[in-house]
Amino acid sequence: MKNVKYPTSFKTYQKPEISVKNRGETTEKWVNLANQYYLESNQAVIHKKPTPVQVVKVDYPKRSAAKISEAYYKTPSTTDYNGLYQGLYIDFDVKETQSLTSFPLTNIHPHQINHLKAVHTHGGLAFLIIAFVRLDEHYILPFLALSKYVERSIKGRKSIAIAELREDGLKIEMGLNPTYDYLTPLKSYIAQQKKR
Amino acid sequence: MKNVKYPTSFKTYQKPEISVKNRGETTEKWVNLANQYYLESNQAVIHKKPTPVQVVKVDYPKRSAAKISEAYYKTPSTTDYNGLYQGLYIDFDVKETQSLTSFPLTNIHPHQINHLKAVHTHGGLAFLIIAFVRLDEHYILPFLALSKYVERSIKGRKSIAIAELREDGLKIEMGLNPTYDYLTPLKSYIAQQKKR
Repeated sequence: MKNVKYPTSFKTYQKPEISVKNRGETTEKWVNLANQYYLESNQAVIHKKPTPVQVVKVDYPKRSAAKISEAYYKTPSTTDYNGLYQGLYIDFDVKETQSLTSFPLTNIHPHQINHLKAVHTHGGLAFLIIAFVRLDEHYILPFLALSKYVERSIKGRKSIAIAELREDGLKIEMGLNPTYDYLTPLKSYIAQQKKR
Repeated sequence: MKNVKYPTSFKTYQKPEISVKNRGETTEKWVNLANQYYLESNQAVIHKKPTPVQVVKVDYPKRSAAKISEAYYKTPSTTDYNGLYQGLYIDFDVKETQSLTSFPLTNIHPHQINHLKAVHTHGGLAFLIIAFVRLDEHYILPFLALSKYVERSIKGRKSIAIAELREDGLKIEMGLNPTYDYLTPLKSYIAQQKKR
């Protein structure tokens, strides 16, 4: 850490240029920038896991680094993000939808739901970040609320309406440092959880 | 989870066949098997992170999965393992040495030490698993003890003697379920930490 008070990435955050157009592909990028800021400002230790790859063939050219010449993307067995915030294990995935009305539950792999459930059971904070990119609305949906909708989807509706997310989700507001300040809405939620 | 009481992998654990010969390459495999057992028996949620790969070129053959045709291994920015045990965020890396007398600190990347320090500062449990494969001795070295040796290495000895590890480390004993029962020695350590 070069400088805790004035992290080198401040400049990046002072000129947020978020347009609805590019945000669709970039929610993960905003989360990654936020994580970098949280780490440099000593607020949290949260990292994105590498994308899992099945390596089939590796070449070892003379005097160069090993080159992977055949590999395939694998389905992740867990979520993309985990880490440590306020002494708490946190674990989440980032999901985007182009829909204006609802978030389809088919966007979540069953093994991801199982993983989030295991984290919740063991005392961690499990959630999804759900981005309605065309509405420019971003929510944190804690596992307890998510599981309610997953159960409903067995016999009923297979998606979460935007009105339901506005009710059950914690809204992520754009900030200055970091721009995508997704930990702030979790603060009061964590305080509530600790009381129980 | 199919069956919490009788996980399907029980059979794997009932016939441990560990020889000094093959253990050198397989400490990580034993840790992975242990993690699988801990998860199935509902004791902990700990996963190995995928190996980070820099993808340079991807081919999209017709009617087949995307094929990565050029990629390189990257240096991991954190440790290989993290997860949740007894409500606590835990984070560690597995290191092996062929030495009979000491563990060289050059085996640990500086960014890994920084990461473990950040985890420790934020209230997580950070440690190394150090395997002396030819001695068949395995230790957990908590971050606080590790940092003492890292500091000493600036002006003095650049390795940790086996005698020091026997003193400061928590010994991992081979068990039945799982064979590589590395969480058991942490139990009393965690209880001590919680008291402070």
